[in-house]
Amino acid sequence: MSRYLDMVDSPEHVRKLTLEQLGHLAEDIRTELITVLSKNGGHLGPNLGVVELTLALHRVFESPKDKFVWDVSHQCYVHKLLTGRKARFHTIRTTGGLNGFALRSESEHDCYGAGHAGTALSAALGMCAARDQRKSDEHVVCIFGDAALTNGISFEALNNIAHTTKRFIGILNDNEWSIAKNVGAISSYLNKLIRSPRYSQLQKDFERWLRRVPRGELAIKLGHKAEEAVKAAVSGVVLEQAHPYGGDGRGGYGSSLIFEELGLRYLGPIDGHDLPLLIESLEYAKVCEVPVVLHVITQKGKGYEAALKHPEKFHGVGPYDIHTGDTPPSKPGTPPNWQDVFGAAAVRLCQRDTTLVGITAAMPTGTGLKALEKALPDRYYDVGIAEEHAVIFAAGMATMGFHPVVAIYSTFLQRAYDCIIHDVALQDLPVIFCMDRAGLSANDGPTHHGLFDIAYLRCVPNVIGMAPKDEDELVDMMFTATHQPHASFIRYPRGPAEGVPIKEQPKLLEVGQAEVLRSFAGKGGRKAALFPLGNMQAIARQTAERLEAEGWDVALINPRFFKPLDEATHTFFARAADVVVTFEDHVLPGGYGSSVLELLSNRGIATPVVRIGWPDQFIEHASSVDYLRQKYGLTAEAAVRQVRAIQASAGTASRLAAVA
Amino acid sequence: MSRYLDMVDSPEHVRKLTLEQLGHLAEDIRTELITVLSKNGGHLGPNLGVVELTLALHRVFESPKDKFVWDVSHQCYVHKLLTGRKARFHTIRTTGGLNGFALRSESEHDCYGAGHAGTALSAALGMCAARDQRKSDEHVVCIFGDAALTNGISFEALNNIAHTTKRFIGILNDNEWSIAKNVGAISSYLNKLIRSPRYSQLQKDFERWLRRVPRGELAIKLGHKAEEAVKAAVSGVVLEQAHPYGGDGRGGYGSSLIFEELGLRYLGPIDGHDLPLLIESLEYAKVCEVPVVLHVITQKGKGYEAALKHPEKFHGVGPYDIHTGDTPPSKPGTPPNWQDVFGAAAVRLCQRDTTLVGITAAMPTGTGLKALEKALPDRYYDVGIAEEHAVIFAAGMATMGFHPVVAIYSTFLQRAYDCIIHDVALQDLPVIFCMDRAGLSANDGPTHHGLFDIAYLRCVPNVIGMAPKDEDELVDMMFTATHQPHASFIRYPRGPAEGVPIKEQPKLLEVGQAEVLRSFAGKGGRKAALFPLGNMQAIARQTAERLEAEGWDVALINPRFFKPLDEATHTFFARAADVVVTFEDHVLPGGYGSSVLELLSNRGIATPVVRIGWPDQFIEHASSVDYLRQKYGLTAEAAVRQVRAIQASAGTASRLAAVA
Repeated sequence: MSRYLDMVDSPEHVRKLTLEQLGHLAEDIRTELITVLSKNGGHLGPNLGVVELTLALHRVFESPKDKFVWDVSHQCYVHKLLTGRKARFHTIRTTGGLNGFALRSESEHDCYGAGHAGTALSAALGMCAARDQRKSDEHVVCIFGDAALTNGISFEALNNIAHTTKRFIGILNDNEWSIAKNVGAISSYLNKLIRSPRYSQLQKDFERWLRRVPRGELAIKLGHKAEEAVKAAVSGVVLEQAHPYGGDGRGGYGSSLIFEELGLRYLGPIDGHDLPLLIESLEYAKVCEVPVVLHVITQKGKGYEAALKHPEKFHGVGPYDIHTGDTPPSKPGTPPNWQDVFGAAAVRLCQRDTTLVGITAAMPTGTGLKALEKALPDRYYDVGIAEEHAVIFAAGMATMGFHPVVAIYSTFLQRAYDCIIHDVALQDLPVIFCMDRAGLSANDGPTHHGLFDIAYLRCVPNVIGMAPKDEDELVDMMFTATHQPHASFIRYPRGPAEGVPIKEQPKLLEVGQAEVLRSFAGKGGRKAALFPLGNMQAIARQTAERLEAEGWDVALINPRFFKPLDEATHTFFARAADVVVTFEDHVLPGGYGSSVLELLSNRGIATPVVRIGWPDQFIEHASSVDYLRQKYGLTAEAAVRQVRAIQASAGTASRLAAVA
Repeated sequence: MSRYLDMVDSPEHVRKLTLEQLGHLAEDIRTELITVLSKNGGHLGPNLGVVELTLALHRVFESPKDKFVWDVSHQCYVHKLLTGRKARFHTIRTTGGLNGFALRSESEHDCYGAGHAGTALSAALGMCAARDQRKSDEHVVCIFGDAALTNGISFEALNNIAHTTKRFIGILNDNEWSIAKNVGAISSYLNKLIRSPRYSQLQKDFERWLRRVPRGELAIKLGHKAEEAVKAAVSGVVLEQAHPYGGDGRGGYGSSLIFEELGLRYLGPIDGHDLPLLIESLEYAKVCEVPVVLHVITQKGKGYEAALKHPEKFHGVGPYDIHTGDTPPSKPGTPPNWQDVFGAAAVRLCQRDTTLVGITAAMPTGTGLKALEKALPDRYYDVGIAEEHAVIFAAGMATMGFHPVVAIYSTFLQRAYDCIIHDVALQDLPVIFCMDRAGLSANDGPTHHGLFDIAYLRCVPNVIGMAPKDEDELVDMMFTATHQPHASFIRYPRGPAEGVPIKEQPKLLEVGQAEVLRSFAGKGGRKAALFPLGNMQAIARQTAERLEAEGWDVALINPRFFKPLDEATHTFFARAADVVVTFEDHVLPGGYGSSVLELLSNRGIATPVVRIGWPDQFIEHASSVDYLRQKYGLTAEAAVRQVRAIQASAGTASRLAAVA
């Protein structure tokens, strides 16, 4: 059976199809998404939700001349399928394949990339400003979800739109109406209206109004309304409350007040799966001479039973059985994931210590803190995609004697950097940061890798920085953090832990004390001291084996703390060794190895140091962490090669010295 | 004449005064503020504006049991005068004296410190959550300005208040009604109401209502209203629009909609200088069992003619003539300030290159970008206290071929760290960051020092980092940045520049190329290579003189770029030298010196390195930068001492080697 999708490979093709053909195409796209993602994993639910919306966008606007800015951009798979990337779609999220997010380097149709939420309104407004500066006429369309509205950046942008440009098209893709997952006042504010029995009446009102007004007059009419509103504001009269599309002067307005008060014309709400209505609404938005927000209600997972049943799971999912939606069982003996260990430990620690609470920024499942929500709901706070608020909120609690456990991915914690410095560290408050995804998030790629946290944290005074070698040590570190009068940061990676048993009673670690796993054997020969931080133990052990096979005497030290460094242990082994090797799942500039160099320089120790870590470049996505480690030299082979090179140059130097 | 202020030294004293006595006390406080700040400088305008508000707060609440959280906290001088710090008030902002901001280590009455805007609502909510967890009964009062509402964190907090606690008291201190300085939709939204002729009527309505209701019933009444609102929200009915204090169901509500929609009960607006009304309103807020926001209209500079006339100048001011308000003329021959050079250069560059625009986050005067606003208003964007939006907005413009110049202080740029990584660097967009206040802001102290930017930026791929040795080089660097396809960061300090003439035509610098100011003389003797970054030239020159006096052969290199490092030049001089000395106005961990260590380690160069910079601790405020440099060893003496120590240990080592 030939598919409509086979005939479509660019936006021009979309624009040539009839409405009926577009309907068939939507079905083909859903099938393609469900099929490919059952193998590759990915953001299935969000993409199934925007099939019609994306078709309508490409029908009405002309990408790449017109710009689509997707917030978070995990919902741009349909857009990728329609913009010349259909043939490569089966490679999505795999090595060398398409990225799972919008990527400027991947296509001229991806005008703005993202992986963190809340950036689209600001970026789109910047594009509008640029367009207005150069007096060109392209359209900029920003597609943002209701969850993005819990983030402060979205609000900063909303505060700036009306006085910056007259032409801005925002699409509020609202898909949380069936699962009350999104938190906060904005969320209830949006849900309030669309959950009411009046929703369908509102949509009918809007539709009738839209169809009643001759196309040519639309812009004038709306522009006029907005002008009135501005005049009203300036003259000090309360904004006129009349509804733009008739009714009793209140209808529909209930959910639009915030946007209207911020100077944006609110349109909707409309059914985001009604293709003709979507197209008509967008045609209308296109001719508006005032900033507009079109409120579109979509269904996450639309068209796939399993995704509708389990919207949270299918938001971002690994490979699944296409018929049942079930995830294949993990191999027997697979260790638990780090975040599950974290979640269970958070529950146990909170049960024993009433000063502990858990805080997440909209990632209960991802971080594992959902376990706390289930076990002790009163001690659990989900603040929305609001990392800055999360950290300052924690600081506030800490001033009152609490030890808040803040669970945020390493990459997202970048959002709260000033709060870490200005609120937590400067006031020396005992907030506990558990940084999941420190290291690579291979399938997701550079927006999600957590490779900068050591560098951006170790320059900050008063902080304690740790990285566990296994899940048992993670629990020890969490327990240790609860006893500190300072802020603690614990970094650990994505995925399965090491598979070691977890002690019944966690151990209080000495802050700033490394763990000597194996000292020099004293059997003579050149000495290498290996310092693998956190999850770099395996590579270090392999390095040790290879070096020993070449006659080296090897010491193996688990640094545990990247701040404060265990100066005594590092100094002792560096003095005794011919070469020091540091290993870190982090970029090399400013990282853990760099702090070792600083220490040795301060102490006047000239032992050469080999630093194994990620190079000074953004690391792409790939099917596996191992592939990327091989490619970028985070391997035992590379470590051994560098040690040998140092030995060789040291040999040359000593021969030269002997000659001189 | 004895003053009321002389009788008052603690909140208990305030609570014992009659209303009339409090009025006299207010006058005394104003005189004290005007007098002390005429010598010390400081935030005069904001503090004159909150005299009555602060008195009312201490009259109604019991600090330190009850908590006052001041946003930015530059308006807490009156609070300091009333909480045991009167005798030391003349020391404010000077070495060893009171800090100009709330400081937890300074007083138990300063429950939360700040220096950056927008954090108070989050911190106060954290305190409420802690109080609710431990079921205690203290009040938490958050005093935030209208400008704080342009910041996204405030909004993230507002989104979380209603579902987190039932007892939260927010005071919106709105003082921008007479100068249209604050930007954005929120600002016009607030001004809309209070500028209207109906303002006085609204206040009368509120006052009448407040006085009509017997005290005991207030809480019940208000609680009941809120309950209705919650019920309405849950049942899907649009929020009831009836005004809590009578009238036609619309009065006063015009300005309260956003707060009410976010689940907060809005009270006001009231005159913030009407002491009895303030006290009555706060007494009322105190018994509320729903989160409330009291909208208080205050006048910046109230009671001081010069401050009323020049509100922007007197927001934060240096010493001034108490009679005229005039700033004493600067000494003849004082070089221009760095920010004025920046502002003038921004104008000149924008005039010549239409792809350039300027962006500030509410700091036109502080950064110097006001010059661009005057010269080319269409190319100038002030986005409010919204650093994240500023950076992403710039990134959006950059995707369209523009080179936005983003002027943000080093310390405030911490706010936009994720945007720098995720939006600018990852997409490799040519945004130009001009980081003023890199180094110390001596009078302000640790919230305003800019000492972390090299560390947090040099770990980020794709970025160019520069620091000019003088103002002419600043212009060269800005010019150079406009020619780069990557993001550039230029750091320069507060205060007067070096006093060198600025070339007519700026020079295009070679990216990653240092400037050799003076090579080795080749006259024999031990060799020292000095690398002073940016504004550390003078100290390096003094160091050179002292070392030369001791027989050293000294080379002096201006690194210009902290990223990418000039590897060839650093390597060349490090190989040739017996010691390398790096100088930076930045913390040592992860800084420029650390990047030199990394380079030398990579190249196998064992030349010892002395790193001069700030230690790993937060640096307090003081009267002068020089004092702090002396105290923490950022001096030529300290550099020479360290070089000598290395020479001595090297001598020992070579003697030991000779013996062995």
